[in-house]
Amino acid sequence: MITIGIIGATGYTGLELLKLLQRHPAAQVVWLTSEQSAGQRFGDVFAVSPTLGNRKLIASASADYAGVDLVFCCLPHVAAQEHVAAARRAGVKAIDLSADFRLHDAAVYEQWYGHPHHHTDLLAEAVYGLPELHRAEIASAGLVANPGCYPTSVILGLAPLAQAGWLTGTVIADSKSGVSGAGRSPSLKTHFVEANENLSPYSIGRSHRHVPEMEQELRIADCGLQIADCQPPISNLQPPISNLQPPTSNPSWQLIFSPHLVPVSQGMLSTIYVTLPEGVTEGDVRVRYEAMYADEPFVYVLPTGQVATMGHTVRTNFCAIGLTAVPGTNTLIVTSSIDNLIKGASGQAVQNMNVMFGVAETTGLM
Amino acid sequence: MITIGIIGATGYTGLELLKLLQRHPAAQVVWLTSEQSAGQRFGDVFAVSPTLGNRKLIASASADYAGVDLVFCCLPHVAAQEHVAAARRAGVKAIDLSADFRLHDAAVYEQWYGHPHHHTDLLAEAVYGLPELHRAEIASAGLVANPGCYPTSVILGLAPLAQAGWLTGTVIADSKSGVSGAGRSPSLKTHFVEANENLSPYSIGRSHRHVPEMEQELRIADCGLQIADCQPPISNLQPPISNLQPPTSNPSWQLIFSPHLVPVSQGMLSTIYVTLPEGVTEGDVRVRYEAMYADEPFVYVLPTGQVATMGHTVRTNFCAIGLTAVPGTNTLIVTSSIDNLIKGASGQAVQNMNVMFGVAETTGLM
Amino acid sequence: MITIGIIGATGYTGLELLKLLQRHPAAQVVWLTSEQSAGQRFGDVFAVSPTLGNRKLIASASADYAGVDLVFCCLPHVAAQEHVAAARRAGVKAIDLSADFRLHDAAVYEQWYGHPHHHTDLLAEAVYGLPELHRAEIASAGLVANPGCYPTSVILGLAPLAQAGWLTGTVIADSKSGVSGAGRSPSLKTHFVEANENLSPYSIGRSHRHVPEMEQELRIADCGLQIADCQPPISNLQPPISNLQPPTSNPSWQLIFSPHLVPVSQGMLSTIYVTLPEGVTEGDVRVRYEAMYADEPFVYVLPTGQVATMGHTVRTNFCAIGLTAVPGTNTLIVTSSIDNLIKGASGQAVQNMNVMFGVAETTGLM
Amino acid sequence: MITIGIIGATGYTGLELLKLLQRHPAAQVVWLTSEQSAGQRFGDVFAVSPTLGNRKLIASASADYAGVDLVFCCLPHVAAQEHVAAARRAGVKAIDLSADFRLHDAAVYEQWYGHPHHHTDLLAEAVYGLPELHRAEIASAGLVANPGCYPTSVILGLAPLAQAGWLTGTVIADSKSGVSGAGRSPSLKTHFVEANENLSPYSIGRSHRHVPEMEQELRIADCGLQIADCQPPISNLQPPISNLQPPTSNPSWQLIFSPHLVPVSQGMLSTIYVTLPEGVTEGDVRVRYEAMYADEPFVYVLPTGQVATMGHTVRTNFCAIGLTAVPGTNTLIVTSSIDNLIKGASGQAVQNMNVMFGVAETTGLM
Repeated sequence: MITIGIIGATGYTGLELLKLLQRHPAAQVVWLTSEQSAGQRFGDVFAVSPTLGNRKLIASASADYAGVDLVFCCLPHVAAQEHVAAARRAGVKAIDLSADFRLHDAAVYEQWYGHPHHHTDLLAEAVYGLPELHRAEIASAGLVANPGCYPTSVILGLAPLAQAGWLTGTVIADSKSGVSGAGRSPSLKTHFVEANENLSPYSIGRSHRHVPEMEQELRIADCGLQIADCQPPISNLQPPISNLQPPTSNPSWQLIFSPHLVPVSQGMLSTIYVTLPEGVTEGDVRVRYEAMYADEPFVYVLPTGQVATMGHTVRTNFCAIGLTAVPGTNTLIVTSSIDNLIKGASGQAVQNMNVMFGVAETTGLM
Repeated sequence: MITIGIIGATGYTGLELLKLLQRHPAAQVVWLTSEQSAGQRFGDVFAVSPTLGNRKLIASASADYAGVDLVFCCLPHVAAQEHVAAARRAGVKAIDLSADFRLHDAAVYEQWYGHPHHHTDLLAEAVYGLPELHRAEIASAGLVANPGCYPTSVILGLAPLAQAGWLTGTVIADSKSGVSGAGRSPSLKTHFVEANENLSPYSIGRSHRHVPEMEQELRIADCGLQIADCQPPISNLQPPISNLQPPTSNPSWQLIFSPHLVPVSQGMLSTIYVTLPEGVTEGDVRVRYEAMYADEPFVYVLPTGQVATMGHTVRTNFCAIGLTAVPGTNTLIVTSSIDNLIKGASGQAVQNMNVMFGVAETTGLM
Repeated sequence: MITIGIIGATGYTGLELLKLLQRHPAAQVVWLTSEQSAGQRFGDVFAVSPTLGNRKLIASASADYAGVDLVFCCLPHVAAQEHVAAARRAGVKAIDLSADFRLHDAAVYEQWYGHPHHHTDLLAEAVYGLPELHRAEIASAGLVANPGCYPTSVILGLAPLAQAGWLTGTVIADSKSGVSGAGRSPSLKTHFVEANENLSPYSIGRSHRHVPEMEQELRIADCGLQIADCQPPISNLQPPISNLQPPTSNPSWQLIFSPHLVPVSQGMLSTIYVTLPEGVTEGDVRVRYEAMYADEPFVYVLPTGQVATMGHTVRTNFCAIGLTAVPGTNTLIVTSSIDNLIKGASGQAVQNMNVMFGVAETTGLM
Repeated sequence: MITIGIIGATGYTGLELLKLLQRHPAAQVVWLTSEQSAGQRFGDVFAVSPTLGNRKLIASASADYAGVDLVFCCLPHVAAQEHVAAARRAGVKAIDLSADFRLHDAAVYEQWYGHPHHHTDLLAEAVYGLPELHRAEIASAGLVANPGCYPTSVILGLAPLAQAGWLTGTVIADSKSGVSGAGRSPSLKTHFVEANENLSPYSIGRSHRHVPEMEQELRIADCGLQIADCQPPISNLQPPISNLQPPTSNPSWQLIFSPHLVPVSQGMLSTIYVTLPEGVTEGDVRVRYEAMYADEPFVYVLPTGQVATMGHTVRTNFCAIGLTAVPGTNTLIVTSSIDNLIKGASGQAVQNMNVMFGVAETTGLM
């Protein structure tokens, strides 16, 4: 039985995580923290059944880090760092759902998140928690940086192309997310009357914080498998990867990323436009995707002629991928669907836990 | 041309009001106030076209009350009083969309709103702005208290019965409202993810502030037309009506009112359950409704066998009423539908303006 | 391992059932039928992952009834009868999700469903599958009639009052249902543009088919525990109960039921208005509810001051009940929330299966 | 007063059209047809107030074409042709909301719509009804082909670039539409439970019928103003334009178009990705857009830093355009928002009517 503490349990990722862990046969949540709601029941914060609702929330100061096997940290970035560090100091494994340990380069982190990184030592040990790309490293990791939701949908949608070295020029990801991706703090943007019957792009172009995260992972995939003299070599890519270029200056390809807020609670779809290199056919592409994901329990490639929709994956840990080559052009359209709170956050965190603790990877997630 | 000032224009009622007045051929909005957004354009606050968006918001301190014919006050209760008073001192007519002048009895106001009323002199002149019940008084009024949205749907749904003296025992109004009724200030309850795919009762029973408002008007309708010795007589019902009973002690009938929040932006439906007096048939009831509303431009009674839905009236100033007698019982079910922001707020306010200024009542509202 | 066949698997209850059974540790779905889609994969009918999607649909004519332990029938009423009969003839237990075996009296069935009942012998053995009321009978049943969604919410909301003999006069259930309750066949009423941003009452009063079902069960609950000479006695209530009165003629209490379609996919809330007998206090009521549901795994009573919302139970097998006594009146408002597809259909069917096969009742449902 | 007949009034475009015309001071709807609902009232088909609802629907065979000034045809393509032809034979002007007269080349029409065109003579006189591009021709037209909703959003979003000759390579339009765009006939795709909480791409790439329509208009805009020897010259572009290239073979630029169905009733947003020619700056682009749309009553360009959302234009006849240049790249992202039923259909039809009959262009549309 894996004993677990959850830090910052009163957001949507905390709620989903607790639901998933409650029915996980090998997991036991020992404590839950919330600074704002310490002393209350979980049911005072969410309209849930007593099974979940009767659990008590404690302050993180009272949390016994050393008494658990694993800590999930569901705090926002910056706030997450110190709690993850405390867990690691106590010798406990940690999965961080914030952005604090996703970027290998502390300078890039500071540039995008506006704060210096205070635990660069932990950056060095952190593994990017996308099992489809880093399963072996996750299995032996002490600290896993759980990917962002947009990056999960885009990276899984492009990884086979990146590994084949087939990303070129401008790659456009037009992504659509449910409102839960914006968190649980009320704001005008997420006010029902404003978000309902509406659809809004925001931070489009190269200005969203998930751009460097996506490019980091796709460049590693690209570099590692196709370019022999890639520095550093694939065997020791993990950090620091100082020769990764800043987002705006890569010569061979770069990402344009346009997130949109759509009026659904949960769900995410990325429609991705890629220019295939001369001579690469739709058939070649499909072979690559099917090979990469053939044995993946949570990623499936749709048959020719089908596109992924939000409905394919909502409330599951799956990623569904559609491949549409446009006749008469060299454009490939990849449609990549996940649930932003499950495969895009808490479900992937449980998947990472399973890998880290040697439990069958799909346990509690089917 | 009626010249107009709007106080507190940056909520949903302000937005609807401005939209309606903009296409009203006899109205001209001269100024708009907002304390928070003074100096900004209306388009900085709402995603609207430049036609509306280029209008400047000013502080109420800079508003020239005397320079307009009419002031609409869209502030919350308590805050509204002083601005309405300022308008009246300047000799300007006013329509107040808050609850501040709806209850004739200052003590009842204080009991329900938790603040003493500071302008009881204005209470005495205020007319309850439901044209279907008080058209003549509105025509000559200096101050009109625009009804609440729930009261509009319930009072119009019950007025013919009240006037006939056919309300008895417990009258149950189970009302469903769109989220815009809760205003534009973000809160957890109106956060998209919480309100979407949900439906929540709140303040059910006799605890919602609209209960005394509904009972006041229905008792006046009841008393006025059926009971000869009703004090005060119908000719001078307007205030104070000291013999109106407090909500919980009426012997002949009382209201149970259950509002529910439903995941639509605009719309309201009240499903009202009435026990008909012995010997009153469905036919009798229908005759009363059709007589009362035959000449009303904004209220229509649906044919036998039809029920009102939100869709009947959404984004219009209409009230649609369905009458369903339950065979084998003496229960009548009234379904009453309005748009909470139009007939339930800003549309009704424009209708009142038309009546006050002698413009055809439907101008700008069809 | 319980081996299972599902007849008519391509509606929403079939989908939910398959999802629930797939993660049930003691259940194995052997075959799925669909007349329309026989030969196709489940994934051709629903956008689901390959785990579910690769299952083949067969024609019911090819289904090996004798080769399974249990058949779930997800067909509409009338169509269900013959398939349930075939299963029973093959000696196999059956849970029918249609209305065909819910009403004990074949004449009442014919009156409400417009078809004579062709298997009255099976009516005699059928048990109404609400475990909270009929657990012992379900445990030994060969045929379980799974309750309707509205009846589940209303009966659970009223059963403690019925058992106490505290139902009197007119009991009003104002119910709100998500659109999945209307099934998967496209219609104008369930067309997105018509249902979205709308809310519609339908079949209000005593005209909906669920009225006799609710009254049957509440009268049994009422009669059984309060009236000593109730005929038949509680020990052999199961059918036929020829002395149950037709819906419109009961002297002591009767139900008014108003269903409403609301723009959510899944969820149900019933707001129920009851007149308590003289001398019965809110405290008395609460004691009854808490006693009846204290050991129930799927029903919980909310603390004083809280009301049930759809959100309390959506996508769970729970029923949440709120009790609100209205001060100064003898009105009790019960708010009862379930998920129409889970506790209102497929989840309850699995719960019944667990009871029938001696598996822990919550297995696969938490 | 313009007298009007509407053919096929019982779809969503018919409903919107009737609403708009009812409040249009210079328009009078004389008759409405519906084959399916002939003899019924409009209110039997839609839940509308008696003002609209009491209008009678007649069969088109009974329609007096010659007795009106203008016929709007709201039928689907193919079916529209004969009715438009009948109107023209009767000497009456016509605005056709279907696709039947939008494509100048009958062969292209047949290729995309699968039917030979039976009225190629009318094709020759038809004017593409986008006033921002063809105002003068519309003013003198006998037959106006009202643009599709997607084309309106994409063409207005790209026309200034096309006119400048700045379209190059692959232009990607990722469009999102409300469900009303799919019409009022129920289908599984538009069933509430399927469309709600979902988002689905469909016909992505170059397979949607709106691709040739968009390319036709953008090529005319491109050719006309930039290429002196364009054949035919701008002065007589109207049909046939036999040298327009089929969609897949244009050498200088081509469109990739990906429509998505989103869970809103009305609204449309196109996110368009353009590669600017070397040396063209964001400032250059903005100058072009502002020049082209400065005097347009229904198109506005948002300030730098703002993106268009569905909310900017929903339930209005406006088109809002945002321009976002991506720093460090030559990518321009255009966000173009319209209401699919208003500017994308019925509102634009009324705008065209105003132009055709010399009424102020904004009449009835503000």
